[in-house]
Amino acid sequence: MYIEKVKGAMKLPESVRIFDTTLRDGEQTPGVALTVDEKIRIAKRLDNLGVDTMEVGFPASSEGEKKAAKEILKLDLDSQICGLARTLKNDIEAAVDCDVDYIHTFIGTSPLHREYKLKMSKEDILNLAVEAVDHIKDHGIIAEFSAEDATRTEFEFLKEIYQAVESAKVDYINVPDTVGVMIPNSMRYLISELKKHLKVPLSVHCHDDFGLAVANSLSAVEAGAEQVHATINGLGERAGNASLEEVVMALIIDYGLDMNIKTPLLVDSSELVSRITGVKMPPNKAIVGENAFAHEAGIHVHGVLEKAETYEPITPEMVGHTRKIVLGKHTGANAIRSKLDEYGIDVTDDQFNQIFSQVKKLGDKGKCVTDADLKAMAETALGRVEYEIVKLEGFSVMTGDNVMPTATVKLRIDDTVRTTAQTGVGPVDAAINAIQSSMSETADMELLEYNIEAITGGPDALAEVFVIMEDKSGNKATGRSAAEDVVLASVEAVLYAINKILLDR
Amino acid sequence: MYIEKVKGAMKLPESVRIFDTTLRDGEQTPGVALTVDEKIRIAKRLDNLGVDTMEVGFPASSEGEKKAAKEILKLDLDSQICGLARTLKNDIEAAVDCDVDYIHTFIGTSPLHREYKLKMSKEDILNLAVEAVDHIKDHGIIAEFSAEDATRTEFEFLKEIYQAVESAKVDYINVPDTVGVMIPNSMRYLISELKKHLKVPLSVHCHDDFGLAVANSLSAVEAGAEQVHATINGLGERAGNASLEEVVMALIIDYGLDMNIKTPLLVDSSELVSRITGVKMPPNKAIVGENAFAHEAGIHVHGVLEKAETYEPITPEMVGHTRKIVLGKHTGANAIRSKLDEYGIDVTDDQFNQIFSQVKKLGDKGKCVTDADLKAMAETALGRVEYEIVKLEGFSVMTGDNVMPTATVKLRIDDTVRTTAQTGVGPVDAAINAIQSSMSETADMELLEYNIEAITGGPDALAEVFVIMEDKSGNKATGRSAAEDVVLASVEAVLYAINKILLDR
Repeated sequence: MYIEKVKGAMKLPESVRIFDTTLRDGEQTPGVALTVDEKIRIAKRLDNLGVDTMEVGFPASSEGEKKAAKEILKLDLDSQICGLARTLKNDIEAAVDCDVDYIHTFIGTSPLHREYKLKMSKEDILNLAVEAVDHIKDHGIIAEFSAEDATRTEFEFLKEIYQAVESAKVDYINVPDTVGVMIPNSMRYLISELKKHLKVPLSVHCHDDFGLAVANSLSAVEAGAEQVHATINGLGERAGNASLEEVVMALIIDYGLDMNIKTPLLVDSSELVSRITGVKMPPNKAIVGENAFAHEAGIHVHGVLEKAETYEPITPEMVGHTRKIVLGKHTGANAIRSKLDEYGIDVTDDQFNQIFSQVKKLGDKGKCVTDADLKAMAETALGRVEYEIVKLEGFSVMTGDNVMPTATVKLRIDDTVRTTAQTGVGPVDAAINAIQSSMSETADMELLEYNIEAITGGPDALAEVFVIMEDKSGNKATGRSAAEDVVLASVEAVLYAINKILLDR
Repeated sequence: MYIEKVKGAMKLPESVRIFDTTLRDGEQTPGVALTVDEKIRIAKRLDNLGVDTMEVGFPASSEGEKKAAKEILKLDLDSQICGLARTLKNDIEAAVDCDVDYIHTFIGTSPLHREYKLKMSKEDILNLAVEAVDHIKDHGIIAEFSAEDATRTEFEFLKEIYQAVESAKVDYINVPDTVGVMIPNSMRYLISELKKHLKVPLSVHCHDDFGLAVANSLSAVEAGAEQVHATINGLGERAGNASLEEVVMALIIDYGLDMNIKTPLLVDSSELVSRITGVKMPPNKAIVGENAFAHEAGIHVHGVLEKAETYEPITPEMVGHTRKIVLGKHTGANAIRSKLDEYGIDVTDDQFNQIFSQVKKLGDKGKCVTDADLKAMAETALGRVEYEIVKLEGFSVMTGDNVMPTATVKLRIDDTVRTTAQTGVGPVDAAINAIQSSMSETADMELLEYNIEAITGGPDALAEVFVIMEDKSGNKATGRSAAEDVVLASVEAVLYAINKILLDR
């Protein structure tokens, strides 16, 4: 509601284009390197997502980059495909060779870049910029020009070089905050000042060194910028670029602008990029993080269950997410009751109090209470439980470089003891195979998910294993266990989940 | 430089207080739960870091919360210690019982909260707020009042309730953007409007649902807010709160304000909170992320090596970080030459070209080139290498529930074959112990770091193991290996690192 009060003074453009640079600046994330195939997979997704332009790489920098650009262009996607090039003939020719729709050319303009990196005069830099744009336009290709480190460049020179490329018929002028030194207020000022002298659509490219890339991009739009450079998950050099998912949702929800992005694909796109690049987003990442629509505190859950808007600015469905209610030490009685209702578990007040105090106690110990944990507690409170239907009586595992990893497990299932040996690709795989084989007469159980939480600290640190098992009827349960021996932790986690499924029947 | 242009119009306060809520809102991160001991460890660190006030929990919500607050108060820290309380007598008494310096009391004020959560009239809400502040002040305790969901509350009611608590002698008035719906522009507007009617210092508490928590907090300061609520790593409900490290660095660097925070402790504090909460920050997290001062692209590295300011807004030392140069497919010749110089490795042009093309090839394959990789490449180019000084001739490992995990390794060291058996807490530990014991005559090697990268996908997925080994003279090397068998991957990674150290001598 307070946004309406300030909107009047903004110079919002009619629409904002998304120039995605996940495959270029995003790929320059230190530690990230994509193969041609990986770039193609991400490019297809970005196209589905609806980005207006995607920068797919820097063709002059390596053979792999050139090949990726060529392969992506063969896909004939809807998004415009852009290649990066310095203001050098060879760089531009390398991009032209790939048959790109769009070339993004750049040269440093700030005193620091002129003096220490380029060792060139303003005049030489301006001439190179104009020649580069001429060269691109001679090929009939869309041209975007970036004055690298624009936000630390004297306004007079910035205006001069931008006006020169505008005269050379550049299509987009980009203002990179290369080192992330801007604040929203100063970005609004700079774009407003530039707008006074330029007619070509303006674009911004913000870095997140102070956590302000998204806000600075939005401020530029408030001053009339028509395009924003962004990356999925905010990948990019150092602290990265403006995160596409945050920029897009803010422009749609806060500013009421129409965008070409299909927002229900945002979470899925974020996950794909995470998986391929290996850069995991934290649970508290806006829009796409695991916790973006998760609630724990008792007080909040009460509100959310009553009316989701109380604690959610947008619906999870809008971005392809799901709501999650987590129980823990802060959890109030309301949340627990609603969970029990959801599972159709009726409890007396006494039984409820028993469950409630167990949840609190686990929480104070630093543990979270999963849905399955809660069910198990309820079963205990209802006196239905005989906890371990399947009990581990013994196991041993053998592996080595010339040994086929082999495991033997001895399980007590109901009253029968069964010993089974199986091999596998490693000791953990062998142990789980042996359990599954041993169980096969009782219940076919499939391992849906297996996860070793990253272990840091030493080979004698606790290995925490998390599994999801499923039986033939589709009943699922999670199992979790921690032990110094990763094989033992795996065996325990699997049996824990199996027991939960069997109890549930 | 553009910030100077807009500073004149700001109403910056003389100084800004940091109200840290890592231990309260941060702990409400779904999936996070801290024990009393863990809270104490974090509280000590926050005190060293220099936060003005730390909110340590919600004493009325559980016995554990109460105990944590009491224990932290016994430490007699410099920071003020605050407890959260609803505007209820019992909540306030629970906080008073803990002997807190400061109570933060809150009640929802927006139409949604009044209607769906509280089911109360404006008048009742206002009365409860005033009574709560009276009650706190009767105990002689510092009082802060929050109108929950303030940013979706009608201005007239917000003004009314804030003026009422001001009359009741509240010490701080907090404006929570509970659902993260503000943009910097509207936050500046709201705080400016409130400032016209209130004399008590204003505080903001921003949530990051659209990635704008930091920018909104800074905007509030531009309008005169004297306090910011923040959490280490931006932890908190859903997408979390404003990240302390980002807010503090922006206020110091961009706004030129003095703060009580000892910034060189920021990275270390972030890491401590990550370790204890289990919420890992991504490499592209601003200020404290692993990549915040890392550089990959050839172009950028050239600039950074010439003059760091070209691509770094602040020095890494300022926040307790270190600069990192990563080599990969984008890497130019300059970066590689400078690394080789750094190691004192002289190569001919031919040898250099061989190394350079190897780096590019690895990069195109999607691999990153670590320092140790580069050294190994150089050694090969120089023809110095006989790669494996220590060679694995065989190994076997045994574990089980009643078996002491035992490993046997057979190593060829120079020309001697040595077979050694050792036990450990698990199969991996046993295998590494056996290698170390086998090596002890040749060289004492210590395992500094051991890491299993999280494995998702199944027990037959590749386990990627990363280690750092060190010999007695302090020579370090990294080793990395991936195999389906986690024990085999560990053995290979350790031997890889050992060989690199031995080659280096």
